[in-house]
Amino acid sequence: MFVDRLITAIKKYDNPTVAGLDPKLDYVPAAIRDKAFRAHGEGFRGAAEAITVFNKRLIDALCDIVPAVKPQLAYYEMYGTEGIRAFEETCRYARTKGLLVIADGKRNDIGSTAQAYSTAYLGRTKIETNESPAFDADALTVNPYLGYDGIKPFIDDCVSYEKGIFVLVKTSNKSSGQLQDLVTEDGKHIYEKVAEMVDEWGSQAMGQNGYSSVGAVVGATWPDQAAVLRGIMKKAYILVPGYGAQGGTAADAVRSFNDDGLGAVINASRSIMCAWKSERWKGKYTEDSFDHAAREEAIRMRNEIRQALSERDISH
Amino acid sequence: MFVDRLITAIKKYDNPTVAGLDPKLDYVPAAIRDKAFRAHGEGFRGAAEAITVFNKRLIDALCDIVPAVKPQLAYYEMYGTEGIRAFEETCRYARTKGLLVIADGKRNDIGSTAQAYSTAYLGRTKIETNESPAFDADALTVNPYLGYDGIKPFIDDCVSYEKGIFVLVKTSNKSSGQLQDLVTEDGKHIYEKVAEMVDEWGSQAMGQNGYSSVGAVVGATWPDQAAVLRGIMKKAYILVPGYGAQGGTAADAVRSFNDDGLGAVINASRSIMCAWKSERWKGKYTEDSFDHAAREEAIRMRNEIRQALSERDISH
Repeated sequence: MFVDRLITAIKKYDNPTVAGLDPKLDYVPAAIRDKAFRAHGEGFRGAAEAITVFNKRLIDALCDIVPAVKPQLAYYEMYGTEGIRAFEETCRYARTKGLLVIADGKRNDIGSTAQAYSTAYLGRTKIETNESPAFDADALTVNPYLGYDGIKPFIDDCVSYEKGIFVLVKTSNKSSGQLQDLVTEDGKHIYEKVAEMVDEWGSQAMGQNGYSSVGAVVGATWPDQAAVLRGIMKKAYILVPGYGAQGGTAADAVRSFNDDGLGAVINASRSIMCAWKSERWKGKYTEDSFDHAAREEAIRMRNEIRQALSERDISH
Repeated sequence: MFVDRLITAIKKYDNPTVAGLDPKLDYVPAAIRDKAFRAHGEGFRGAAEAITVFNKRLIDALCDIVPAVKPQLAYYEMYGTEGIRAFEETCRYARTKGLLVIADGKRNDIGSTAQAYSTAYLGRTKIETNESPAFDADALTVNPYLGYDGIKPFIDDCVSYEKGIFVLVKTSNKSSGQLQDLVTEDGKHIYEKVAEMVDEWGSQAMGQNGYSSVGAVVGATWPDQAAVLRGIMKKAYILVPGYGAQGGTAADAVRSFNDDGLGAVINASRSIMCAWKSERWKGKYTEDSFDHAAREEAIRMRNEIRQALSERDISH
């Protein structure tokens, strides 16, 4: 089961955090951009090459620190087909370095089309008599707005191919409450109703550690809701965005963990990718040593989360 | 405004229907597949080539009948980077034939990432000093689960680049009600709450015909809800899936129109792409004349929707 592979990797590195790979071209050092543009032109192909080189250096710097990377598909799609090639190459390279890959695509559709998305990211595409994976991520984020028949194909592939999904429950953004915080006639918020669904769906894909490969997304920016949701979805692994650049603190983020110290992974993207120019590391690193800065920031974040987890344990 | 271009095209062909391009490899005639596999190998590249040829023949057969095509991204993503190239080439070819392109991707994310998706499909990607479109669709389907800040970047690009969005409100699938039919404490369904948001958001992108480029998706499989939603979102153009293969009838589908005979476009995918082997046309067409069958089915559908609209008008 994916969730067991994730837990094994988290324990190996004693690090329940993942690095987001959301490579805006602005984040890529000028030297890498210039070289890529000289070789491939100042268009989509050159941009995609620059992003790929940037990602590979980040992966090299992080692969013995973090258990997983989370490429955000939007930042690849904006460079068209060449951008998708960069996504594919990033996933492939991360896997060769032993990292798990969580594709952040928030995909959703009716059942037959959800199956096509699931095939793309988690399953295998059949062409005549052969079957082979298209993007071969380890997990995918998905949106629950269409209900169970839009989720089931993903769950089936989680079981068949040892993959995972993270279902959006309470997202980190400011206006997440506009729909997710609506209160239903039985007095529950929509995010609680979705959490109940995730909990129920999860029983189909249980691993050996008491957790399910049907996980959830709960933003670090909503610590009180996170505590409630942790109680509803006891066996879901929770992917926690919103830490760092979006304002969630370590103390906020660890609200999504269970008492066993497991049950959640915290994501940081910009604070790692752009660490060299952050207030914290400015002066110590240059644009060209962005990967060393990313590594130091990933270690700092790991330690901060460890600390917050141990402090939380003491208060029990 | 996109919505005005859509209305102009609908009036030109007197046809408020769009053809979905969801090209499963099984749908592609053996002769096209074999030729593509011989030239490009029996892998993703060959499959993508087969799909592209299939789509182009459909576009040639339909481009003077329907105002728009709706490629479903999942069916391209399942062939990896090569599949995305087929999507890109399909969009490009459809535009050269004068068709509007509605990319069905149901994209969604927090604001900054929603901007990246919007850039990919509706806007222009900046690379150094140049800006150029990545996929350059005319409209995109989007998911409202994240609320307004996940929608606003798309609306801004609708205004800047004359594009459109269709926000999922009530989807055509069986389990759509699991979340969308939940009743809130003020007695309204979630789909009604989302419809109210769509109506409000739409005022930012009004065209010259009284309609907004912020549209909605409402399945033909829910005619009673469609009538309610039409009343809430008076100025939204409604994209109606679920007609034909999914069970929605013409009478169901026209519930999404306004009294002016405008306000909705009905999609059909499988019933057009696979018309040659349907009960209706079996015997008249062969696999190799799938495009002629698609054309005849598109004309039949157009006439059926026209008829249903005129009968509905009489009942007023």
